[in-house]
Amino acid sequence: MQERENAAVDYAELHKDRFLDELKDYIRIASISTDPLSKDDVYRAAQWTEQQLLNLGLQNVKIYPTDRHPIVYGENLEAGTGKPTLLIYGHYDVQPPEPLELWESSAFEPTVRGENLFGRGTSDMKGQVIVTLKAVEALMRTGGLPINVKFLLEGEEEIGSPNLPKFIVEHKDLLKCDFALNPDTGMIGADIPTITYGLRGLAYFELRIWGPDHDLHSGIYGGVIHNPAIALCELIAGMHDKDGRIALPGFYDKVRTLDEEERKQFNLLPMDDDFYLKNTGAPKLTGESGYMPVERVGARPTLDVNGLLSGFTGQGSKTVLPMKAMAKISMRLVPDQDPKEVHQQLLKYLEEKAPDTIKWEVEEMTGSPASITDRNISAVKAIDKALERTWGKKPLFRREGGSVPVVGQMQEILGVESVMTGFGLPDDNLHGPNEKIHIPSFYRGIEAITRFLCILGED
Amino acid sequence: MQERENAAVDYAELHKDRFLDELKDYIRIASISTDPLSKDDVYRAAQWTEQQLLNLGLQNVKIYPTDRHPIVYGENLEAGTGKPTLLIYGHYDVQPPEPLELWESSAFEPTVRGENLFGRGTSDMKGQVIVTLKAVEALMRTGGLPINVKFLLEGEEEIGSPNLPKFIVEHKDLLKCDFALNPDTGMIGADIPTITYGLRGLAYFELRIWGPDHDLHSGIYGGVIHNPAIALCELIAGMHDKDGRIALPGFYDKVRTLDEEERKQFNLLPMDDDFYLKNTGAPKLTGESGYMPVERVGARPTLDVNGLLSGFTGQGSKTVLPMKAMAKISMRLVPDQDPKEVHQQLLKYLEEKAPDTIKWEVEEMTGSPASITDRNISAVKAIDKALERTWGKKPLFRREGGSVPVVGQMQEILGVESVMTGFGLPDDNLHGPNEKIHIPSFYRGIEAITRFLCILGED
Repeated sequence: MQERENAAVDYAELHKDRFLDELKDYIRIASISTDPLSKDDVYRAAQWTEQQLLNLGLQNVKIYPTDRHPIVYGENLEAGTGKPTLLIYGHYDVQPPEPLELWESSAFEPTVRGENLFGRGTSDMKGQVIVTLKAVEALMRTGGLPINVKFLLEGEEEIGSPNLPKFIVEHKDLLKCDFALNPDTGMIGADIPTITYGLRGLAYFELRIWGPDHDLHSGIYGGVIHNPAIALCELIAGMHDKDGRIALPGFYDKVRTLDEEERKQFNLLPMDDDFYLKNTGAPKLTGESGYMPVERVGARPTLDVNGLLSGFTGQGSKTVLPMKAMAKISMRLVPDQDPKEVHQQLLKYLEEKAPDTIKWEVEEMTGSPASITDRNISAVKAIDKALERTWGKKPLFRREGGSVPVVGQMQEILGVESVMTGFGLPDDNLHGPNEKIHIPSFYRGIEAITRFLCILGED
Repeated sequence: MQERENAAVDYAELHKDRFLDELKDYIRIASISTDPLSKDDVYRAAQWTEQQLLNLGLQNVKIYPTDRHPIVYGENLEAGTGKPTLLIYGHYDVQPPEPLELWESSAFEPTVRGENLFGRGTSDMKGQVIVTLKAVEALMRTGGLPINVKFLLEGEEEIGSPNLPKFIVEHKDLLKCDFALNPDTGMIGADIPTITYGLRGLAYFELRIWGPDHDLHSGIYGGVIHNPAIALCELIAGMHDKDGRIALPGFYDKVRTLDEEERKQFNLLPMDDDFYLKNTGAPKLTGESGYMPVERVGARPTLDVNGLLSGFTGQGSKTVLPMKAMAKISMRLVPDQDPKEVHQQLLKYLEEKAPDTIKWEVEEMTGSPASITDRNISAVKAIDKALERTWGKKPLFRREGGSVPVVGQMQEILGVESVMTGFGLPDDNLHGPNEKIHIPSFYRGIEAITRFLCILGED
């Protein structure tokens, strides 16, 4: 078995330049799922993904349409019923590239600088999808897959996967498996292989404030009209208390407390103040008092403003008293918070705090609960071993601050746990300008997933 | 004299359709002074203005270049040294038309609907400039001007007249006069002729907040990084106290108190809560406690946010933790506040309140003090009589919330008082979409200014 593993790893080493070129082709497709104007590009990315599965020689390869962006599926069940079946999840859509002026090279023209490949989606997560496709290719081209593999690749992750749960429910048999692999979480550092066993959930809202029914002259009406931009700021400012805790009524009622053992492990992670300062360039850290940085990100809920817009934002000055103001506000949730309840908590906060000098409206954009994976299942042990074999050192376990709703959905609908790993680094600028993937980590990722599939096949 | 006055009024009545057509031509020139891309259009508006003065047959007509947008000058001194000289001020630049989607007809294609002419600059203040030009035309074409008249028409009012003070200083002899007329203030209602004797000043700033040195993923970093959009909201929320007073240190130190007599007059103005609610469509009024609405707008300083921008503001959701946030913040000032001191007060507030988790910067955009005109001068008495003769009722005196820095500059540099009136209405949507001028008020304005010039000539 070790022989088959090494042969596949050698194959991957031999073809690594082509693998990177294929990733570049993938990046060139601007599959921005949130942008209605990019719908055709998202579809082109689905077709490109389908072609990869066909090239591998998988069976039942198909593009499944949904109400918005399609799902791509393919499988190889040649290992037979005596071997476990792994469902590999990925998404081929990407975040919008704005602000464009901050990219050093074009977001959709992948560019190598130093050890990194820059481009939107390199790390999140076209690069990770290619890692899994190429691990499967390496094994199939050097003796066959040691386990059964199914690929489920969606195009709506960056907009909250609105059509995925329905698809999973309607295709429970097709997706039947023993474990899932979700390579959409990252590493703590290039030399620190990492397994994520917890993810935060997400509740994303747009809050709109209206005051007067048209824009006003701030000289003629300033003094009698509650400025909607100021009213919005006042409401947002009240969403945190002086200890950095979120002030929505009942927000912490269901937050699961970290036990002493888990806190001890958390504090072993090499992610102190300096780690976060270095990776962000922020002048100083902030957050909920009483918790370490890694706890605040991994195990405590947070509230962020993702966007603000009101009035005149061009060059120069305009003395307008704007009629409206908008904020995009999202909360990262931890077990056992419920995004529907958080929505109600936000509404209650606004009902209590919003003054009657303005009108307001909240639109729920997306919501998903947090999730925790059982660390004792065989698939987690297999990835642990595979990462150790690849990096020559034990991986670290952590809970991550990001949200991967599909992990909770697979637990709930398919009854399977997800192995969460990935080969992105903290400075990959996910969702920001100059997103990149560290090319040596990308190659090591292919090696690690190859070994993971082999170790799973040993059982 | 009454005969000459009536002949001119008849002339204006006879030519009123042409006057409106000329205003339409003026509106079609998109002279947006704040927009660098509109520089040529601003110049075209200066040339159009110059041509009007030439058509009138004025002397010394000239376009004076400045560092940005030019000043247009012309005069008629035929009344001779025995008669007073009036300096008529106006501006031919306009505010940006954004948001464009809220205009019912194109901002720069003037359109009549009902009794109104819609278009950017109709009321503020190309319409008012045309009123004065046509009053002068009516008198010149029917026997000559009863007083000496000088026109000073600038193209930078909407950006704070950065080059006007220098021009006035350098052309003190050219601009020598007994009084100034500034028709850039409005009327309380179409049947309420209004004289403004006080104006608020303006201090306009752009506040920029930085946190991390690039946009971050809100899942991976939410909980340790002070979100710049939230930090901005917190700082803005703290700028008012619970009584609606402005919380900048020392802000009220130099605010001149209203005496009982002035408060009594203020309260005679037909501008109660309903007036402001009707003209704005706001659900409820707000403002500094202890003052009537008209006092809060006319005689008390205010602080407004004119624009807010941070992060992702497009359609859909993006889980970005933005690197920066920006607000345009302006204060309307009353006597005897000094805009330079207000700038220092804002800096002091930020030095005291801004947390060390973010960096900040303030850019001063424009600043001018408030001004008060002596109500007992002969020119104010003349406009009082002219408005009464035109409307058949006594005009009301008020202090207005807007800012016209040139009034203070003329007091300071030329030593002359300004007569402030104008024929715009409270629902003219100055600075907002669907700006309009009430056409009957425009015509009455021409009549009123014609009579004003005649009454001044009677002395």
